[in-house]
Amino acid sequence: MTDAPPPATTPAPRPADAVPDDFHVFDTTLRDGAQREGINLTVADKLTIARHLEDFGVGFIEGGWPGANPRDTEFFQRAREEIDFRHAQLVAFGATRKAGVRVEDDPQVAALLASGAPVITLVAKSHVGHVELALRTTPEENLAMVRDTVAYLRDQGRRVFLDCEHFFDGYALDPVYAKRVVRTASEAGADVVVLCDTNGGMLPAQITAVVRTVLADTGARLGIHAQDDTGCAVANTLAAVDAGATHVQCTANGYGERVGNSNLFPVVAALELKYGRQVLPDGKLAETTRISHAIAEVVNLTPSTHQPYVGVSAFAHKAGLHASAIKVDPDLYQHIDPALVGNTMRMLVSDMAGRASIELKGKELGVDLGDDRELVGRVVERVKERELAGYTYEAADASFELLLREEVQGRALRYFTVESWRAIVEDRPDGTHANEATVKLWAKGERIVATAEGNGPVNALDRALRVGLERIYPQLAPMELVDYKVRILEGALGTGSITRVLVSTSDGRGEWSTVGVAENVIAASWQALDDAYAYGLLRAGVEPQD
Amino acid sequence: MTDAPPPATTPAPRPADAVPDDFHVFDTTLRDGAQREGINLTVADKLTIARHLEDFGVGFIEGGWPGANPRDTEFFQRAREEIDFRHAQLVAFGATRKAGVRVEDDPQVAALLASGAPVITLVAKSHVGHVELALRTTPEENLAMVRDTVAYLRDQGRRVFLDCEHFFDGYALDPVYAKRVVRTASEAGADVVVLCDTNGGMLPAQITAVVRTVLADTGARLGIHAQDDTGCAVANTLAAVDAGATHVQCTANGYGERVGNSNLFPVVAALELKYGRQVLPDGKLAETTRISHAIAEVVNLTPSTHQPYVGVSAFAHKAGLHASAIKVDPDLYQHIDPALVGNTMRMLVSDMAGRASIELKGKELGVDLGDDRELVGRVVERVKERELAGYTYEAADASFELLLREEVQGRALRYFTVESWRAIVEDRPDGTHANEATVKLWAKGERIVATAEGNGPVNALDRALRVGLERIYPQLAPMELVDYKVRILEGALGTGSITRVLVSTSDGRGEWSTVGVAENVIAASWQALDDAYAYGLLRAGVEPQD
Repeated sequence: MTDAPPPATTPAPRPADAVPDDFHVFDTTLRDGAQREGINLTVADKLTIARHLEDFGVGFIEGGWPGANPRDTEFFQRAREEIDFRHAQLVAFGATRKAGVRVEDDPQVAALLASGAPVITLVAKSHVGHVELALRTTPEENLAMVRDTVAYLRDQGRRVFLDCEHFFDGYALDPVYAKRVVRTASEAGADVVVLCDTNGGMLPAQITAVVRTVLADTGARLGIHAQDDTGCAVANTLAAVDAGATHVQCTANGYGERVGNSNLFPVVAALELKYGRQVLPDGKLAETTRISHAIAEVVNLTPSTHQPYVGVSAFAHKAGLHASAIKVDPDLYQHIDPALVGNTMRMLVSDMAGRASIELKGKELGVDLGDDRELVGRVVERVKERELAGYTYEAADASFELLLREEVQGRALRYFTVESWRAIVEDRPDGTHANEATVKLWAKGERIVATAEGNGPVNALDRALRVGLERIYPQLAPMELVDYKVRILEGALGTGSITRVLVSTSDGRGEWSTVGVAENVIAASWQALDDAYAYGLLRAGVEPQD
Repeated sequence: MTDAPPPATTPAPRPADAVPDDFHVFDTTLRDGAQREGINLTVADKLTIARHLEDFGVGFIEGGWPGANPRDTEFFQRAREEIDFRHAQLVAFGATRKAGVRVEDDPQVAALLASGAPVITLVAKSHVGHVELALRTTPEENLAMVRDTVAYLRDQGRRVFLDCEHFFDGYALDPVYAKRVVRTASEAGADVVVLCDTNGGMLPAQITAVVRTVLADTGARLGIHAQDDTGCAVANTLAAVDAGATHVQCTANGYGERVGNSNLFPVVAALELKYGRQVLPDGKLAETTRISHAIAEVVNLTPSTHQPYVGVSAFAHKAGLHASAIKVDPDLYQHIDPALVGNTMRMLVSDMAGRASIELKGKELGVDLGDDRELVGRVVERVKERELAGYTYEAADASFELLLREEVQGRALRYFTVESWRAIVEDRPDGTHANEATVKLWAKGERIVATAEGNGPVNALDRALRVGLERIYPQLAPMELVDYKVRILEGALGTGSITRVLVSTSDGRGEWSTVGVAENVIAASWQALDDAYAYGLLRAGVEPQD
């Protein structure tokens, strides 16, 4: 807490293109979302995320707790200056006044005003156990704290939302008191009273029943804040809407403490696509996938491949059986058109691959297979044969594209020929390791011999390959291995086990995945690297060698 | 499909400790879960997962589609022979007979019988659009296909469940026809008719309404199969139970096509802890976390840190504001006691292993930790330190037992000392590979130098080690590497990535798993081998060296 709060600032005006007030999409990624284990946001990160959320078109962006830590105080100051809010209003989060203190004298409340945020969310206890144990005060004083703080901030020209922490657990224990808190806040001028399932233990049917009763008994405008501890946060949010809540608190990608919060993206998608209620500005829903991934990048977490609506797998089909039917009518096999949320359908090439899925995949990659049934047949045969040998193309799009293009063009798309290579790993008596690799190659008519060390044998091979080739292909310079996976497969027909390696490579502008299969991990890695660089050079527009 | 199906096999009898039939927990990890992008299960993987599910106590394990691919056919044969089913019944999945074919003549139906599975799930269309487009037949013939196939399999002594694919979409389009399919199946003898939200687009309120109506109108016993495309699969499953469904189809960790299926663990936890309905055998709910993580290891996916109930973050609290209140009454800050599902509350990021879990684990392994609080503290510290470095003991019981016994006995339990080793992999101009390893060891006072070749560098190291040691320790002879998994972990603090290897070893009587972590795959493999043979010799009763 700051001891000497800065003077109160005039609140920012309501933005011109603010979304209608009858339904609130309220984002708390920057405050509650940041509680997720592993997330640690700088002020710059918070500003970037706020821009993405403003761009997405949420109505409210809760930025943090000004006064509680200097980072949040700085964020509010800079957000006011640096971000052009056209849709969203900035929200400061804080607590009701301390027990036994006049609200005018509470420095934490003063810091809320000083943030200049036009909207303030106050957190309050509505669970008698928490009032006594955490606040160490009486239920009556807690009500006074709510009443005084809401009224004071209203008098200062701020809009106030009140978060009832642990509401549903408190309601189960003492519904009369829980409802008194709601009524007190509403009567003191809170625009919305938000019922929070802070411990996240509720299920949708419970939420619907409680919200319906509280709405009927208090007449307050209600909001919902759900945590995902039962795996039902999205459903709980919608259950509250079903019961009459008109304000939903969510976080991008469901980030939050423990399991996480209600995920903004499936909530918004359900409201717009399933309920038919527009809650974002025109055209913004189609930005969902982009914004979800962009925010993941800022917080430095890999975007979940299986996140509803926005995951890279969310509209991926293992073709097989249904491929021909999907070709005729994709809508029979997907709950929405993925373009509505900015995602795309993908056909996975798997060992059940048939002609129809290869044709679809070719179309997706922009490779024209025309009406050449014989060509498609050849690709199907090659994929089947390779998958029987242990390859998988589902997770190695670049290897599949190379295979496809080689069949279409009727020639190998390669940039160098390997004569031989060698990798040595040595564990020395002092416990350290030496990793050394040598490659012998031919490229553009030249014989190249290169040796390099690395932190492991594959890294040493990778370096030797690049040392040898970078002079001839400077386009390799920005390419970098970003992921590496190994799987041991049982051999077919008792031939012993085989090793499959999947490699992801990036050139700073995009990523691609390749696969290698061999009887040992080094040889399989080499194959995956070979494909990775061939695809990278193809992508960079370099002409393959004959 | 097989052309000439093997003869029908007598179905396996109902297991002795089968869970009561009034509510079905039906797992389809091995069939529908395997549709997840990136999952590719061998028969050995499927058997291991089936053992975990049997151990967890689900009522039904859907193993795959016998006859549709040789792997599934082999799985059913081996599962019958190799797994001692005490709780679960094995289920074979297949389709109704082809249009225009007599059910007795359909080889796919014959393969279902040949699997010997006592229960068969038949998938059928209940959506007129799919009947016409995917099956290319008439709605009436589709009903006949359902009727004939269910009746035939019942006559052959099998229990039949019918999956109505695309039920909810079909119901929206033509509720009369959708209900006719349910009634037809039920009247023909299907024990359960499972309503499938195949495209996953439903929300809980819709599920409840449809299930309630179908139940009232048909009187059939109903099940639910939900996909997670709206992020509501768990809630949708529970919504169907609320409406009267008594059979839930789920997958471990929610694996499945696109976004995934309804997740077995939060569904079971909600049924037991929120609904108060026991659906697992006594004491099994506390195995939830362990089994969730073990299955993730088998499919080679990182266990989700944020999965409800079982994630390592699921009961993690960023200490601070509430720390002291949590200490006084943790139940005010968690929706359930994490021990109920085998998880633990964590207050600090580094607090990975608690005393209680170490004590429990010691008891499980038969290692007496007595009341020695200092000893337990030392083990906790060592586990924390090693897990921070990338080790995982959840899937490496043998490495953990070695660590534990070494602390208890206060000495290393080792059988040889390594001086150095070296592995060479060479790709020759003719495309073949040479893999050679040399080890230099001390055992029983003798210096041993041994060299061997292998099909890869790890295999060569393994052989060199055994060539060197088998004369001194003949007990090594029956030991054999049976599984080998590699995962690349992101390094902490920018130190680059590290490699974790998990090895399973068998001596023909049992299997054990060990872990190694190092900056490269060969060195990590060596560590895991070192532990594997130390544990194997300990298990064989050989006295360790001093």
